[in-house]
Amino acid sequence: MPDKLLRMHRASLRERRPVMVAIAGDSAAGKTTLTAGIVAALGAERITSICADDYHRYDRTERKELPFTALHPDCNYISIMEQQLQLLATGQPILKPVYDHSTGELVRPELVEPREFVIVEGLLPLTTRMSRACFDVSVYLDPPEPLRHEWKIARDTGERGYERDQVEAELARREPESAEFIRPQRAHADIVVRFAPIDVREDPPGTPLSAELILRPTVGHPDLTDILSNTDRYTMHLKLLRDDDGRPVDALHVHGYVDPAETEVLAKSLWTAMGGSSEVPDGLGRLGADGHSEPLAITQLLLLHHLVAAGR
Amino acid sequence: MPDKLLRMHRASLRERRPVMVAIAGDSAAGKTTLTAGIVAALGAERITSICADDYHRYDRTERKELPFTALHPDCNYISIMEQQLQLLATGQPILKPVYDHSTGELVRPELVEPREFVIVEGLLPLTTRMSRACFDVSVYLDPPEPLRHEWKIARDTGERGYERDQVEAELARREPESAEFIRPQRAHADIVVRFAPIDVREDPPGTPLSAELILRPTVGHPDLTDILSNTDRYTMHLKLLRDDDGRPVDALHVHGYVDPAETEVLAKSLWTAMGGSSEVPDGLGRLGADGHSEPLAITQLLLLHHLVAAGR
Repeated sequence: MPDKLLRMHRASLRERRPVMVAIAGDSAAGKTTLTAGIVAALGAERITSICADDYHRYDRTERKELPFTALHPDCNYISIMEQQLQLLATGQPILKPVYDHSTGELVRPELVEPREFVIVEGLLPLTTRMSRACFDVSVYLDPPEPLRHEWKIARDTGERGYERDQVEAELARREPESAEFIRPQRAHADIVVRFAPIDVREDPPGTPLSAELILRPTVGHPDLTDILSNTDRYTMHLKLLRDDDGRPVDALHVHGYVDPAETEVLAKSLWTAMGGSSEVPDGLGRLGADGHSEPLAITQLLLLHHLVAAGR
Repeated sequence: MPDKLLRMHRASLRERRPVMVAIAGDSAAGKTTLTAGIVAALGAERITSICADDYHRYDRTERKELPFTALHPDCNYISIMEQQLQLLATGQPILKPVYDHSTGELVRPELVEPREFVIVEGLLPLTTRMSRACFDVSVYLDPPEPLRHEWKIARDTGERGYERDQVEAELARREPESAEFIRPQRAHADIVVRFAPIDVREDPPGTPLSAELILRPTVGHPDLTDILSNTDRYTMHLKLLRDDDGRPVDALHVHGYVDPAETEVLAKSLWTAMGGSSEVPDGLGRLGADGHSEPLAITQLLLLHHLVAAGR
């Protein structure tokens, strides 16, 4: 069955089905940070947020005996994930398995009822055709590998009690499966998000990362040409290009070196142009405890637009 | 949607869908004993056997704070049970929750793949219209309450480490919910099985219990009239009567006081008459570690017939 037909079939099942969003990416790629702004802007009470990593087939002790890491589809109940994504997409509750990251154990499952928006973040939400067909909008987080390694080392030594060399060894062990199973999902996402410094510039340390958003024509993006033609290319610009695989895409660049006040003004006109009826939502662009990033806010704004549009 | 239409819809989904059987009844009504003979006769490798009590919503500690017992539908994830029964009925795997009876905890769920026959035993498998629509054949175990209380006391003091007065208090506490939620399922079963001594006779202690099988015209029962008209009414007889609710049913009586050798001969002709092509299957009629009951064997034989017929 073509994915489109499947989407229509799903749509016909319930009048009020939830909007399904995938946030895919490797470990420490920024999934939780991206999601947090969406939840803050829309309100937690309208959102069901689940983690696809809960579909682990083995606990941490069992995995030690296995020839593959948690990134391998065989290490996960992929068919159950597909099944439960379909159930959520058609407005039905699920009894979701739960993987306890602190103990590495598989514990008591929990009832999850789909609200207006269902955000599924994880390592493998876009790994099969059936799972992809369950989403209205899909995002892949694609930071440069050295940057992601830094983020993972900072998080796992800071919050999860690991030593730096343990995290580095784990990253090396996972690399072949990252390449084989995680990164291929990039090709299937409607939006690919890359936060990175701009190579050719030598911005001082502390300059916010810039965002490159690959916008694939697999979903209807807002028409940005008007708003962007009225602005200087210094803050943000849109570029037609071919992706790695030769397919045409739009690339939206949001520059981190710009004065946040300027980007904020642009965010406002962008939100209005995209049909946002009121003020730019609060809570966008939060980075950690008290950081802020305007490129992140713009990314979340664009994603919000898709969520709200898909729910209409 | 009428249940029949639902059954047809299910049938159309997969060519090789499993045969679904419900064995419902109150605690210690004999569900496991009845099921064991079916599993022995067909072979464990053809059967998926699950317990509907795994859908408990609360663990034992949480239930202590609640105004109802585990028998109450609100104490169970009934909608998830319905959902997973539908999935099994259409040949799909499920990630089934697991309730650990020894600790009273809800633990790691397990993957269950439907084999040729799926037997679902438990307190509430026939409690909703949707759950009932998932079964090809349904059985309700209906021993007289005093007998069931004896069985439960024997089991819970013997195997589960309780004191007699604890079990009696629990039975009293559960009685209102037994009456409200468990026993109404009797009206929905295709076959109602009652093992009991025959009141009017004064058989010596140790005489096997007789079986009364209520056969509802909701499924096609084998034509027993021929075989039974050729036999004396002493061993077994079929009687047309009205059930408690006035609906017409057949009642098959299998007498426990008969010499087992005679019942065995009858079992054989019964099996042949029902279309059983080879010998009467092994393993029927087992009672506990080394007991045997011919009325139980005949009951299992009849049920086997339905399972095999539904799978054709």
